[in-house]
Amino acid sequence: MKIGILTIGNELMNGRIADTNSAFIAREMNLQGWPVEILMSVGDDASVIKSRLHYLLSLTDAVICTGGLGPTADDITTAAVAEAFGLPLVLNGDVLAFLKEIFARYNLHWTDNNAKQAQFPEGAKVIPNPVGTAAGFALPVQNKLVLVIPGVPAETYRMVPEGVIPVLRRFFPQAVQQTVKQTIKTFGLSEAMVDQRLADVNFNALGVSVGFYPVFPENHLVLIARSETMEAARENLSRAVAEVTSRLADCIFSYGEQTLEEIIAAALAEKKLTIAVAESCTGGLIANRLTDVSGSSVYFDRGFVTYSNEAKIRELGVPSEIIEKHGAVSEETAQRMAEGVRRVAGTDLGLSSTGIAGPTGGTKEKPVGTVYIALADAGRTICRHYAFRWDRKRNKLLSSEAALMMLRTYLQEKK
Amino acid sequence: MKIGILTIGNELMNGRIADTNSAFIAREMNLQGWPVEILMSVGDDASVIKSRLHYLLSLTDAVICTGGLGPTADDITTAAVAEAFGLPLVLNGDVLAFLKEIFARYNLHWTDNNAKQAQFPEGAKVIPNPVGTAAGFALPVQNKLVLVIPGVPAETYRMVPEGVIPVLRRFFPQAVQQTVKQTIKTFGLSEAMVDQRLADVNFNALGVSVGFYPVFPENHLVLIARSETMEAARENLSRAVAEVTSRLADCIFSYGEQTLEEIIAAALAEKKLTIAVAESCTGGLIANRLTDVSGSSVYFDRGFVTYSNEAKIRELGVPSEIIEKHGAVSEETAQRMAEGVRRVAGTDLGLSSTGIAGPTGGTKEKPVGTVYIALADAGRTICRHYAFRWDRKRNKLLSSEAALMMLRTYLQEKK
Repeated sequence: MKIGILTIGNELMNGRIADTNSAFIAREMNLQGWPVEILMSVGDDASVIKSRLHYLLSLTDAVICTGGLGPTADDITTAAVAEAFGLPLVLNGDVLAFLKEIFARYNLHWTDNNAKQAQFPEGAKVIPNPVGTAAGFALPVQNKLVLVIPGVPAETYRMVPEGVIPVLRRFFPQAVQQTVKQTIKTFGLSEAMVDQRLADVNFNALGVSVGFYPVFPENHLVLIARSETMEAARENLSRAVAEVTSRLADCIFSYGEQTLEEIIAAALAEKKLTIAVAESCTGGLIANRLTDVSGSSVYFDRGFVTYSNEAKIRELGVPSEIIEKHGAVSEETAQRMAEGVRRVAGTDLGLSSTGIAGPTGGTKEKPVGTVYIALADAGRTICRHYAFRWDRKRNKLLSSEAALMMLRTYLQEKK
Repeated sequence: MKIGILTIGNELMNGRIADTNSAFIAREMNLQGWPVEILMSVGDDASVIKSRLHYLLSLTDAVICTGGLGPTADDITTAAVAEAFGLPLVLNGDVLAFLKEIFARYNLHWTDNNAKQAQFPEGAKVIPNPVGTAAGFALPVQNKLVLVIPGVPAETYRMVPEGVIPVLRRFFPQAVQQTVKQTIKTFGLSEAMVDQRLADVNFNALGVSVGFYPVFPENHLVLIARSETMEAARENLSRAVAEVTSRLADCIFSYGEQTLEEIIAAALAEKKLTIAVAESCTGGLIANRLTDVSGSSVYFDRGFVTYSNEAKIRELGVPSEIIEKHGAVSEETAQRMAEGVRRVAGTDLGLSSTGIAGPTGGTKEKPVGTVYIALADAGRTICRHYAFRWDRKRNKLLSSEAALMMLRTYLQEKK
């Protein structure tokens, strides 16, 4: 069963409001196993709505429309839909009584234009609105279905699962499928490299569809398996996840919706470890990300942004000879920063960054994007060198991601 | 001139990503005085793209497409557009050389699938991409124009004003009006409040269109004056800017594209002042934002993220009695943090934050969102209390914005 979505409103055409209903409805449809064929938005213009609706119905089995169901003159969706199929508008006595009762209950003044919200095309089935006055409706035409609900997101978000989907399942019983979904998050490979590593996996043969979602600097994959039975769908999914894992294991940090920060937070809490950070090129971004998780004060003690050499020496106890000999951007300085912040804060772990975020400050030996990340515990200090190649903000983001990945790997390997 | 917008990508059809490009492009087109007739989204399917493109061209004069220009197998937009009009793909030597140079410069391994990004339909004019590898193109067909650019929002946002609009103006000279534009950035009012304050301004009568761009936590306005002559457009614009300023002066921080961070950087550099920050609830975000500006090491000395009370006492010299008596989240602690960090770092200014970002940690007296921001110089310390009401990340962002606004106002008022 193919779905079309038509969002209606002048505010969408002039860009005053970004359409979030389409993405919400599309997600809900996909979870049912019903592919969305086309999304369209048009203004509040009856002749345009009529023409586009016929076009969408020619491409799909069901069209879900949102918007234009209010009581004011510019809300013309219901009338346009009725006209599109040559149907008269019929007053629904139950809906009218419900509206009048609402007005009475809240002491609102009834004006006759409100009766408009009780009119529906002949043959339509009313879809109740649990959070507003504008009811929706489902209209069977030519063995297909046109569904119309309000465009206010809070109303759309309730009426799709509670009204639209049950109506669709009853009208298209042969399209009811079982689906399961798995998100896999990776870091360290470009989208093209992820794609290449997975090139030989035949997801179709596994009954699984795969989506690539670059969320800089991460790449997320979403696998969706659908089948007649939930058991078969789960089996297909787990085979596809195994194929992906065997090719991307070194880059996967999350099976699910958890963020890298949340995974680290859970691991630090579970192992009862505390951490402090000393940042140079990341400028506070590592601390900011670690403290994005609620409850981070349990494991995060303090952070230093030591931009000047004097701050590295005074706050972290980095020996000035180290900076003089190797430079502020060096493996040695990164290590001493990590060890220093751990000692000063009295935490189990110390994490540090030093590098050249750019666009200025690079040299031939240490070009822009040169970054050292170090992690110290009681026994040892590990340090890695990176060469990033983006603009300042993305180099900072990549550096923070590399630091958090180093921490995550450490926590995973630690007994 | 009527515009159609076609956004392409399976991630739009399964609802994984909400389409923000359409609203952005629609706004930009409206600001040029070019109405948008229809918005459409389809998946990465060549036959679907071909068919929809013809439909859109039948309704409009120019169709702007985004998405599907990457190097991977599922990126098929360029080939689909070429096929739609029976055109061969032609390799563009300049673009190929540019791509190879990028790969060489960053020591990336060249694979032949990347050459795909140097192919364009015969007769297309390349639209350069200033921030990525995927170039766009404009293809004249049947006296109409098909424009294709990448779907990555950061790339779309650059290429529409820098590439798409100039091409449209050249191709449809009769649709070009003289326009001048002014961005005004505000902080401190909701979008609805900005709207309300400006409700009595008749922008139409001034020959000016106004676009609202909420960029949380800021609200940006873009005024565009259109007229036959540049002189008249400029005059209209300056009258509209005066009207806006008289109603929003207390919230405006930028007339232009400069970010708050850049404005502060310029003011600190000009006044030869240095700064250090001490953060609690913002967790490093203020330091991170101050160091997002290249060259920030000139004025930014160091930052402390003092999450634990012990860190506030040890690193910043906040007296423990102050924390015991007034609490870590209090005006007194914020002031002592600002004064302490200034003293420790030996900078001209000290900036601090302390608060409850949430969702846990609130009390009846100090609910989630309670934040104190303080700024100390050699002579005095100013402190303000805020009550934010969002989620953790947005409360952190609002707190950092409030801190930077306090700093910006201080720098503006300082002789």
